[in-house]
Parts: sequence; structure tokens; C-alpha cells
Amino acid sequence: MATPANDSSLQAIRYRPGSLQLLDQRKLPLQTIYIDIRNSSDGWTAIRDMVVRGAPAIAVAGALSLAVELFNLENFEGTSQDASSLITKKLEYLVSSRPTAVNLSDAATKFNEIISKAAATTSDAKDVFKVFIEAAELMLEDDVTSNKAIGSFGAEFIRFQLKDINKLSILTHCNTGSLATAGYGTALGVIRSLQTDGVLEHAYCTETRPYNQGSRLTAFELVHEKIPATLITDSAAAALMKAGRVNGIIVGADRVASNGDTANKIGTYNLAVCAKHHDIPFYVAAPLTSVDLSLQSGDEIVIEERSPLELLNAHGGRGEQIAASGISVWNPAFDVTPASLISGIFTEKGVITKKTGSESFDIKGFVQRAQGN
Amino acid sequence: MATPANDSSLQAIRYRPGSLQLLDQRKLPLQTIYIDIRNSSDGWTAIRDMVVRGAPAIAVAGALSLAVELFNLENFEGTSQDASSLITKKLEYLVSSRPTAVNLSDAATKFNEIISKAAATTSDAKDVFKVFIEAAELMLEDDVTSNKAIGSFGAEFIRFQLKDINKLSILTHCNTGSLATAGYGTALGVIRSLQTDGVLEHAYCTETRPYNQGSRLTAFELVHEKIPATLITDSAAAALMKAGRVNGIIVGADRVASNGDTANKIGTYNLAVCAKHHDIPFYVAAPLTSVDLSLQSGDEIVIEERSPLELLNAHGGRGEQIAASGISVWNPAFDVTPASLISGIFTEKGVITKKTGSESFDIKGFVQRAQGN
Repeated sequence: MATPANDSSLQAIRYRPGSLQLLDQRKLPLQTIYIDIRNSSDGWTAIRDMVVRGAPAIAVAGALSLAVELFNLENFEGTSQDASSLITKKLEYLVSSRPTAVNLSDAATKFNEIISKAAATTSDAKDVFKVFIEAAELMLEDDVTSNKAIGSFGAEFIRFQLKDINKLSILTHCNTGSLATAGYGTALGVIRSLQTDGVLEHAYCTETRPYNQGSRLTAFELVHEKIPATLITDSAAAALMKAGRVNGIIVGADRVASNGDTANKIGTYNLAVCAKHHDIPFYVAAPLTSVDLSLQSGDEIVIEERSPLELLNAHGGRGEQIAASGISVWNPAFDVTPASLISGIFTEKGVITKKTGSESFDIKGFVQRAQGN
Repeated sequence: MATPANDSSLQAIRYRPGSLQLLDQRKLPLQTIYIDIRNSSDGWTAIRDMVVRGAPAIAVAGALSLAVELFNLENFEGTSQDASSLITKKLEYLVSSRPTAVNLSDAATKFNEIISKAAATTSDAKDVFKVFIEAAELMLEDDVTSNKAIGSFGAEFIRFQLKDINKLSILTHCNTGSLATAGYGTALGVIRSLQTDGVLEHAYCTETRPYNQGSRLTAFELVHEKIPATLITDSAAAALMKAGRVNGIIVGADRVASNGDTANKIGTYNLAVCAKHHDIPFYVAAPLTSVDLSLQSGDEIVIEERSPLELLNAHGGRGEQIAASGISVWNPAFDVTPASLISGIFTEKGVITKKTGSESFDIKGFVQRAQGN
């Protein structure tokens, strides 16, 4: 089932029609191993077990796991309506793997619209499967295109906002790079763009406890891309800011409410508070698929709590015991950063800013204008 | 040499005349093993290898290692002056085990004064040894007495400042308990006092990356003392404060400058910034031996940088690789929290506060008044 990597490019998702492999991110940075995903059941397990992580990557991987299952499905005897029902059921199942990952849930809604339309215009189940497979493949392509646009808009905005600084040092949190998306990355994509533009002095990444996405994955990507970079503990971030070594902070988003409040990896809010204290701009980089306009504010976001083992044992819970036996643990996966602490939200359609004097973003207005383009 | 623990009390330093055992803190929390310390050479090794840690505990353990050596010394043929010289030489050697641990160095200076006075008034070497042994024993007692006073003053002050809150939840960082001192602890001693007073709702401790003093040692002490307690990642502290689950933060100090700027374990400044943002009082608990009046402000404190391995590998650098190969690391041992972010400094002589409108503490004035008492 596991296949060793045979080339040096950093690709979390390897796809061709009928075949999907996911880079097993639990094994990084020590081993680069790809896992064959043959169906939505493999996809569900890979998502739940964190073989693949990062909201955009989860959505793409989930959709493609079903695409390969349908591609290889033989002897389906039902109608086009049955095909549509099957896909809806499988998507619902996939969404249950990581309930907080909104991208997959949103994607499922869109896929359901597309396939019910298709089912209404054909009686052949195979046609419905084909429509789904093409939509899933388009999602893969779109994610990379979208990330490159985020990187480009974000880098341009930062260069403008911080134009008095010749070379910029940027701090990021968690992993939002090629490994968290279909490619290029969101927050890390902006850092990549700054590097390409020749204006990046240095990148700093946090360990990102308890699962160490920063020290394992972001550090791995930064070394891989030859971006000058330094790893710090999460709690050293404030001291780094005080020392004047950071010009800006860029993070990703798991979910953005319509006022701009942003749920992201635990520790993000901590960085935003410290950034404000040191008068350092704090940016969020995320595709518009991360926006949930049904949420008025971050207060409505339910925070998933993860296993105490992630703190009690080494290696994100899989290693030897570190902590004292019998201690209780609070291990929220995310925290919510209020819009008031965010300097701008970088999307694939441009940068969302606050009106002067406003404490929140008008994301609905931005989306409507973007759709009008 | 190693002796398993045979009672349940948590004592980092077990001493009776002629006999010393140190709890091997490298083995905690998985194993409770005491190591026999027969002389200053054993003491030196135990300090260097972090069997014992925490500035006050290092000083007491070092002094007692020499005390047991002298207690058991047979057939010393020299004069009282020779005895004094021997002690001075051995103390110098002990100080070289952890050159940054200022308490041991300060203690050595005081011991040297005491024994040269003694040597001037007697010709019997045994008398000089006896004077040293008594001074070392007094230091052990004084440290515990001093910590209990810190706990008592601190708890009283917090109860007064937060008198509108019925039961208090307190967050602490690193380890400042029985394991870091001769007993009772400083910041953790205050939490212990609040618990004894029946006003503690809950204690929270951070992991304290990268060496995990919080998850290994503080969590161990809290469980041992049956104090209701929860472990969080360092970066979850801001989210915990935002959720309204913390009423106050208490930390220890490695060094306090004369204006109240405080050097303490990396991450302390991060907590202080977040405390200010959430309008939560932030307290420092430390004996007056941690004050260095020769320092005008925290700017003069040189920050020790520790090995990158503490971030790159598990178990504080001793375990398997976690982080990506080739990444640079910034690993400062301490950070400096400016006096402006500190609500009060708890000492064994009372609580140091700022005058209304002042951004700093007058520690010299406080010390002079305390000595006048």
C-alpha cells in the first residue's frame, strides 16, 4: 500500500485519472512515503488520521478519493439518479471525517448541485460519474491557480504597506504550504511570492504545538525551497517581535466569518495579540472557499477539541510519554482571531481591507463585488 | 548509587546530617529515583547533568553536597585556615558546574565570609567545618521558610486585588515548585497557598517548550498535590484568557532588575503581553536573592541561547528527530518582561507594587525598607 517517493518535487497530492496517492504527512520530515488511495473509504481514513491535512488539501483529497472510486467502478447497475444519490451519500460520509474542515463541506454542496443537474439531463449513470470526476479534477487545478493569485495579491499588498522596509522578515504559523493545499500554499505561498520578488529577508516559523506542523512541515518546505528560515518555539514569538526581527505575520485560515473573524490553528490568536502589542501587521491568507457567510462572527464557530495524547506523548501523541500521568489537558484545535486584530485578508480575488475606523471586514460586499467581476 | 523512592512525599532534596539524596529530575515524570550525593564532586555532576535544576535548588544542593563531604571527612590534619581554604576551593569548583546560576555563586560569596570569620576565631579545623555545615543547613531551611512567606504574601495580595471573584483560576509557566527550590516553591507556592486557603478554583500550566518543564514537572507536582489542574500548550494561553478561564497569571523569575524588569523562562513575556490585552493581572514571585540591583533595567540582562537540539529532537533534545533537517533554530532560554506589564512582585518580605501612574518598581527602596525592618 505504501510507495516510496521516487522524485524530489514536493507534492502532497499525486493524481491521474483513476489513481490517487497522498504523501503521508505523519511520516514527514523523516520519511517521504506516498499512500495509495483507492476509494472514498481510504480517503476518509487518510483525512481522519491526518495523512493529509490543511482545509484546502482535505477538500481536494476527499473529492479525488471519490473520483478514483467512481472511475474504477465496474458494473454499476443503477440509473443516473442512483449515481447522483450514491455520490451524495459518499460525500456526506467524507465530510464526517473532519467535521470542522469547511472546505470539504462546501465542496460537497457544490458537487451535489452539479451532479443533480447532470442527473436531470441524462439517464446514464456513467455520465453523472464523469461530471463528478471532471468537477473534482477542476477543483485540484483551481486550488493551485487560486493559491498563486493569493500569493501574488498578498505580496503586492505587503510590499505596498511596508514600502519603507527594504527587505521583509515574515513570521508564519502552522503549515499552509504545498503540503496543506493542492500546491503552492496560502500564507506560505505569500512568503514564496515575496521570495520570488526578491524582497524576503527571512522567514520564521513556529513549532506549532502540539502537532508540530511548523517544525515538521513548514520547516521542511522552507528548507526544500531554499528560503532563509528559522524555527522558534511558539512562545518565543513575542520575544522575536520585541527584538524587532519581524516585519509582518501571515497565517492561513480554517474558517472566516462574514465580519472577518478568523478561526485558525491554536496559537494564531496568541500571535495576533502580540502583533498588535508590537504594532506589527497581521495578515490572513485564505481562498474565498474558507469564508462562511452564514457566520455573522467568530462567536458562532465551534472549536474542535483534540486528543490529550497530543500533549501527553511525544510525536503528536504517537511517541513516548512526556507529561506527568494523571494531568488533565485542554487541547483546542483552533482559536478565533477577531477581525479587529487583522490588518488584511488575502484572497484569490484580491485583498479584503477594513474601512478606516471600522473594526470588521465587509466580506459579503467583497464577495459580491468579486462575483460581479 | 540510585535508590528508588520509598515514600510518597515530593522532595527534590532529601537531607540529614551526613547524608544527601537528590531526586533525579531527568527521569521525571516516568520514574521517581533518588541519587546519593556523597561529596562535592557528586554534587557538581548532579548540577551539571540537570539531576537538580532551578536556581534556588541548585544553590542548596551544591552547598549540601559539600556539607555531607565535610561531615564525613575523617583525619583532616590541617589548621582552621586550611579548612577555610579547602571550603573556598570546593565552592569555586561547585560554582563552575552551571556558571549562569547566580544563586550558587552568591551563596558561595556569603559562605566564604562566614568561614573566614570562623577561621579567624578558632584554630580547630573541625569548628570551621561545623560552621559551614550549619550555614548550609540554614540555607535549606531559609529557602523553604522564604518560599512559604512568598506564598503567603502572594496569596493574600491576590485575594485582596481580586476580591470580587469567589474562586480563582491561575495560570503558571515553567516549573517553580518543590522541584525547583528546597521546597514549597515560588510561583507554584503561591498557587499552593491559594489552594490551602480554599480559594483556588483551578490551576493551568503551560507545556513550557522546548524543555517541557511545565508538562513534565509542574504537572507532576500539581497531580501529586491533588490540585485541580489542566495542561495547555504555550500558544493556547491567549485563547484560554479570551475564554475567561484565567483570573491571574503567576510566574517565577531568574533575575529581576532594579526597575522590576524580569528575566524568566522563554514565553513569560508572551504571557505578559496577552495578560495585558485581556486585562488579567500578571504577577512575579521570587525571593529577593533573584533581584540584581546592579542592573538598571532588563536591557542589561544577557540572554543565554540554548542548543537547537531542544527544538529539533523530542524530549528536550535527547529523543528522536522531530523537525525538518537543515532548518535554523533560535532558542533563547529566557525573555525579559518589562515592569510595565507586571502587576506586582511577590517576595519573602512582602509584595512590591508600582506607585500609581508609574511604569516601574522601586526595588532598591523596597529592599532598604525591608532590611530596616
